[in-house]
Amino acid sequence: MGWDYLSFRFWIGTWIAIILLILVAIDASALVCYITRFTEENFATLIAFIFIYKAVENVLAIGKKYPINNTGVTDFQPNCSCSVNDSILISHRELANSTSVDQTLCLELGGILSNGCFTPPYASDVFLMSILLFLGTFLISVYLKDFKNALFFSSKVRQFISDFAVIIAIMAMTLLDLTSGIATPKLEVPHEFKPTMPNRGWIIPPFNHNPLYTVFVAIPPALLGTILIFMDQQITSVIINRKEYKLKKGCGYHLDLFILSILIEICSLMGLPWFVAATVLSINHVNSLKIESECAAPGDKPQFLGVREQRVTHILIFLSIGLSVFLTPMLGHIPMPVLFGVFLYMGVASLKGLQFFDRILIMFMPNKYQPDYMFLRQVPIKKVHLFTIIQTACLICLWVIKSFSQTSILFPLMLVVMIGIRKALECIFTKRELKILDDVMPEMSRRYQMDNAEVGIRTKIAKFFLGPKLTKEKEYIKCVQVINDT
Amino acid sequence: MGWDYLSFRFWIGTWIAIILLILVAIDASALVCYITRFTEENFATLIAFIFIYKAVENVLAIGKKYPINNTGVTDFQPNCSCSVNDSILISHRELANSTSVDQTLCLELGGILSNGCFTPPYASDVFLMSILLFLGTFLISVYLKDFKNALFFSSKVRQFISDFAVIIAIMAMTLLDLTSGIATPKLEVPHEFKPTMPNRGWIIPPFNHNPLYTVFVAIPPALLGTILIFMDQQITSVIINRKEYKLKKGCGYHLDLFILSILIEICSLMGLPWFVAATVLSINHVNSLKIESECAAPGDKPQFLGVREQRVTHILIFLSIGLSVFLTPMLGHIPMPVLFGVFLYMGVASLKGLQFFDRILIMFMPNKYQPDYMFLRQVPIKKVHLFTIIQTACLICLWVIKSFSQTSILFPLMLVVMIGIRKALECIFTKRELKILDDVMPEMSRRYQMDNAEVGIRTKIAKFFLGPKLTKEKEYIKCVQVINDT
Repeated sequence: MGWDYLSFRFWIGTWIAIILLILVAIDASALVCYITRFTEENFATLIAFIFIYKAVENVLAIGKKYPINNTGVTDFQPNCSCSVNDSILISHRELANSTSVDQTLCLELGGILSNGCFTPPYASDVFLMSILLFLGTFLISVYLKDFKNALFFSSKVRQFISDFAVIIAIMAMTLLDLTSGIATPKLEVPHEFKPTMPNRGWIIPPFNHNPLYTVFVAIPPALLGTILIFMDQQITSVIINRKEYKLKKGCGYHLDLFILSILIEICSLMGLPWFVAATVLSINHVNSLKIESECAAPGDKPQFLGVREQRVTHILIFLSIGLSVFLTPMLGHIPMPVLFGVFLYMGVASLKGLQFFDRILIMFMPNKYQPDYMFLRQVPIKKVHLFTIIQTACLICLWVIKSFSQTSILFPLMLVVMIGIRKALECIFTKRELKILDDVMPEMSRRYQMDNAEVGIRTKIAKFFLGPKLTKEKEYIKCVQVINDT
Repeated sequence: MGWDYLSFRFWIGTWIAIILLILVAIDASALVCYITRFTEENFATLIAFIFIYKAVENVLAIGKKYPINNTGVTDFQPNCSCSVNDSILISHRELANSTSVDQTLCLELGGILSNGCFTPPYASDVFLMSILLFLGTFLISVYLKDFKNALFFSSKVRQFISDFAVIIAIMAMTLLDLTSGIATPKLEVPHEFKPTMPNRGWIIPPFNHNPLYTVFVAIPPALLGTILIFMDQQITSVIINRKEYKLKKGCGYHLDLFILSILIEICSLMGLPWFVAATVLSINHVNSLKIESECAAPGDKPQFLGVREQRVTHILIFLSIGLSVFLTPMLGHIPMPVLFGVFLYMGVASLKGLQFFDRILIMFMPNKYQPDYMFLRQVPIKKVHLFTIIQTACLICLWVIKSFSQTSILFPLMLVVMIGIRKALECIFTKRELKILDDVMPEMSRRYQMDNAEVGIRTKIAKFFLGPKLTKEKEYIKCVQVINDT
């Protein structure tokens, strides 16, 4: 319509900021109670899949830009020769001594190439090197991250290697790329600190020849944007504030949203991308701050003790991102496939621990090999699979809507629909089943409660048979015998 | 000296066959009692390392033959153009439509390439594709071999995937290579069934203009050859006949050697390579025939029950090798790097279960993480490390002697020296320590014996304190308490 995009976007951003402020004022964060594990994990899985998909897609895109040599012949052209007058040929030893004709040098010297020479219609080595770097970064990260559970070296060395797994992988693969000398696509870093578009300043003008009514036209897209930002922020918050992380300091749903609305206004004014507490990054941050008990006995699994709750890492992370402006010459050496490898690793790593993903895996396991999950003890396996299938169908819906540009504007609404579907599930499943399959209570504490409850019930049955003189431990052993006998 | 190699080799082979026959007659296989675990494992580790080293070396050799593009520029030559007269250009759509100039087609049409075209001084994609195929074959084999311990699918499906791990890896990687269309080096298969050298027949003439005294000159090299073949055959036999494999049928050291001498004579007469029960292949064969108990409880380790002792697999294997003559068109599609990947896998797989290798790994583990090996219970850790270091030094000696062509003729003698070094160890270690570190008794049965002995001693101590009225189980619990108290 001939409108200036950034100026219109400024108004959308401003409306989002206003709506978010209103949401804060009317205590809308209380709505997060409707965001159950069903919605949470669907969203987190979707984001993880996007990370994985985009990483692979981007590497394959390198293959399209730099096609491999699939002609089935190698490049050696024995018939290719370079005719230059003799005096120059002798004075340039590189040209005279090399087994194959160095064609660039030949051309530099003004020589003429014979008919046997030809340019390949492909870029050699770039795509395959990209695949090697991509897989290398991913596999090294996975292996070294798990190194803290290895048997070698002291626990401090192992912890260090595990903590810096991704950095080690990036450095190793960047070094490999540098030594190979292959022209893989590198991280594009601008040389100057300035807005990307050459014909705009730091501040976006609010109209820039746009008609005045664009202010109000911006309200509908702003509503959709608000849903997306609200959901993204709050789902991440809900995941981070789960009971199983044993956080001691209070959560700040409203405060976060309030600060977000101010930041979105600043970002809109300066034409920067809006941001939220991105799910994958936040989950990875919490995971990296976990404290685990040092296991004394070999084979003993480390116990999760809590999260190092502080602000230092956040401040240092974003300070480092800011200071990376001065590191541009170094960052320009990092090949893109290495970064895609890190994305793949982050996507795969954030899938770990998602109950939804665990349930998908269970579908491929025979009954006897299934881990001792609490929901398997209490809900019939068919009902568990039905729940997983419905959740998978929702995930596929979200994916399809997100993927096509015609429908992707509906994505924020679909997140709300997801909460509706969760409500509708109450018709198919009993309240008890839903409480177990879709409860926020962490696996471990529920297991503890359950195991205790079970002992209690058995004790009651035993008392019924044997009279009231039983006491504790012995009680339990005997009552099990009695139950087995009857 | 102008002698015909194959005719001289025929005499060496004949002498080896005669000496082997004499060795069989004088019951020389009884000497295998001097081949202890020390020599055995040193030899097996050396062979495994050779497999690993050769696999990596061969892949790197591909990189030398087909260098990668390390010029830092991609191959696209926008200035390269093809001048042909217009009528031909229009009639060949491929040439007109392609984004980059198809140079081979241009030359076929008799066109002239402009100055911007040049031949790269490297072979594109071949080396990197080789690395991908090499690592791919290795990693898929390792992963799928271990798949029988995974939690997914029924045990039959898992067993099937595990059994055919290497075949699946070879087929997958060959298919990848075929679809990529890259000119990786393929397995060279002759088109005809005939001797490799064109100017020789099926039978080697015994002299072929060599002087008559070459018959006797062949005796010294034959002695060295006999040592090598005797050691290689017998060490492999000793490894295969270990008690821990629980073989039920008797071993046939002399019979094997007798058949070997006949085969070596046939091979010498026909100019074929001599052969023995190659260590890595034999170990892998026994491993693939192991029967393990199906584990009922999850997490329960499968128990080793025995080996399927029969002749069917041997016959079928060598029949298949023979019949592969008719498969040459198919085998010619297998890329060499895939086969190197299989060699790497076999080398690494045969390292598993070697106590020598376990002891090397222990050197990098803190005490508390070390597995509960029997020798760690009974021998001080420093003595264990000393034993490992001496063994490693021997291994390095063997490796160095084998590697240089000037010294490699001494390799067979070094194997005998190894047995001498093992005897000399009796000055440094006590008899008891050597019995534990270098005993042929399998780990498991020794553990059983030890654990029983321990209970016996403790029971005796307890009896001393508590009198003779104790019985079994209770006895043990009480006596431990008493020992702890005193």
